[in-house]
Amino acid sequence: MQHKQMFNPIARELEMVENNLSQNINSDVDVLNQASMHLVKAGGKRIRPAFVLLAARCFVNNLESVITLATALELIHLASLVHDDVIDNSNLRRGTYTVKHEWGNRVSINAGNYILARALALSSSYDRKDILEVLADASMRICEGEIYQMVSSYNVDVGLKNYLRRIERKTALLISVSCKLGAMIGNASPEQVRALERYGYYLGMAFQVTDDILDFVADEDVLGKPTGSDVRQGVITLPAIYALHHSPHKQELKRLLASPARCAANYEQILEIIIDSDGIDYAYFVTEHFARKARKQLNYLPDKPVKETLFEIADFMPAREY
Amino acid sequence: MQHKQMFNPIARELEMVENNLSQNINSDVDVLNQASMHLVKAGGKRIRPAFVLLAARCFVNNLESVITLATALELIHLASLVHDDVIDNSNLRRGTYTVKHEWGNRVSINAGNYILARALALSSSYDRKDILEVLADASMRICEGEIYQMVSSYNVDVGLKNYLRRIERKTALLISVSCKLGAMIGNASPEQVRALERYGYYLGMAFQVTDDILDFVADEDVLGKPTGSDVRQGVITLPAIYALHHSPHKQELKRLLASPARCAANYEQILEIIIDSDGIDYAYFVTEHFARKARKQLNYLPDKPVKETLFEIADFMPAREY
Repeated sequence: MQHKQMFNPIARELEMVENNLSQNINSDVDVLNQASMHLVKAGGKRIRPAFVLLAARCFVNNLESVITLATALELIHLASLVHDDVIDNSNLRRGTYTVKHEWGNRVSINAGNYILARALALSSSYDRKDILEVLADASMRICEGEIYQMVSSYNVDVGLKNYLRRIERKTALLISVSCKLGAMIGNASPEQVRALERYGYYLGMAFQVTDDILDFVADEDVLGKPTGSDVRQGVITLPAIYALHHSPHKQELKRLLASPARCAANYEQILEIIIDSDGIDYAYFVTEHFARKARKQLNYLPDKPVKETLFEIADFMPAREY
Repeated sequence: MQHKQMFNPIARELEMVENNLSQNINSDVDVLNQASMHLVKAGGKRIRPAFVLLAARCFVNNLESVITLATALELIHLASLVHDDVIDNSNLRRGTYTVKHEWGNRVSINAGNYILARALALSSSYDRKDILEVLADASMRICEGEIYQMVSSYNVDVGLKNYLRRIERKTALLISVSCKLGAMIGNASPEQVRALERYGYYLGMAFQVTDDILDFVADEDVLGKPTGSDVRQGVITLPAIYALHHSPHKQELKRLLASPARCAANYEQILEIIIDSDGIDYAYFVTEHFARKARKQLNYLPDKPVKETLFEIADFMPAREY
């Protein structure tokens, strides 16, 4: 199963989002347009708008009024990417040169802020205070997550709780908000809004754990960045946390992961220790756990064909072929 | 006359804004709080909230409901400062170490985004689409200004029009928006909203030209940064543009200003050429021109004591003692 297939029921609407994204990059300033368009064209799976649309489809059939909000969610996501690339000094993302690499820090930071302001303009158009409050709150919590990530790097004492909090802020939160807002715009009941918020949350957690697994096991071609990027940058993810507790070489692993210099120089050895532990399998087990919790939330939703799609997405999440 | 005096009629409300600023820095993440609080405590004249309040006072006496919006405007301004310091790699601002210097890029970018999200939350609380649209539009145009600034550096062919567009985006726009929003929240007529928007615009232009003059003539103690910072960074402001056209040494000035290396190494010589031209006096003349235009807008406002204050502020703007 491919992403494309998962999103089949909303394929037409996703195309409208895609057009909308480009149309909203219309500054008077060439460089800003070029950089923002580069970001939009670099692709991505448009997961956040997809969930806004799927969640709304649980309650309304005609999604025309949802396109703008779905577009705003993708813009917020793109803005965070372009800022992250400045922070991490990244030159590549999904196999494409970053805005930071092509245009530098000033353009990247301003392109991010420009896109964010555009997302605000789009979200404001609904004239719904509750939607804006959800977005503002999520934005603040995502910033907090970036700082958790920072203070956790090269910290071999971080545990599961710290990791879960980091990936919650990094990924789960915005997917959760996408589902929640889709439900809100579909005028779902508070119970249904809450169920979709939770569905998105658990699914987002499963997504990010899967992503963190792939950083160990997938090829550079699949990742669009070098295998082991996390380890090289001292980002300690679930397989590493498992290995730090259960690997026979955990003392050596600790010594290596605690040092930026050793993370960079000895990353192949680090990857080997982690892969040889059961860290990857354990992480797959955790994605299963989150996917199960996501599926359970669907009981609260009305019986519509899209419910089956949401179920399949949660089913598909922890698959290794992802 | 001091800033404090100018803002006397709203001194109590500005104090409420000050408290509000600190109260809105309440993340769960220590580093984010410390960095954001550092930014708030580094001070500044709180010009933007002051204009929100003064503009609203033209139409309503009790400003309690305006405090939140005034706070949001200052937060938006502070967010842009902390991002600017990353872009410009600045270690000092107003004589205080920057967040960038103390905590680095990751914290600075996220603190800026956090503060911006907080400003959005505050602005959303009014449940007024028109206010959010003004803010979103201004944010986009300010980003555009940053790029104008970038592409204009070390460019000795820039003229007056380019300079005016740059300072419009850098300073005038947010002061204009502050005045406009104050009027909007005071339920002023469209004509009055427009008059205060223009008043803020012309005043902001006068402000920034004065600031650019001070970069040539004020002491480091007054500026909180070294004299001639603009020249050293290749930022070509009004006195320089004048000198590039009228100085007897304009060829030499051109040669120097066009090169980053020479701007950094020969800035004292550059300052001398510009100060020896009539560039400073010309720039003062321009501030007078803008201040006059600002004062003229006040004719559209109801006769209230605060109108006199707005008049005095515009009168005071181009004074050298500023």
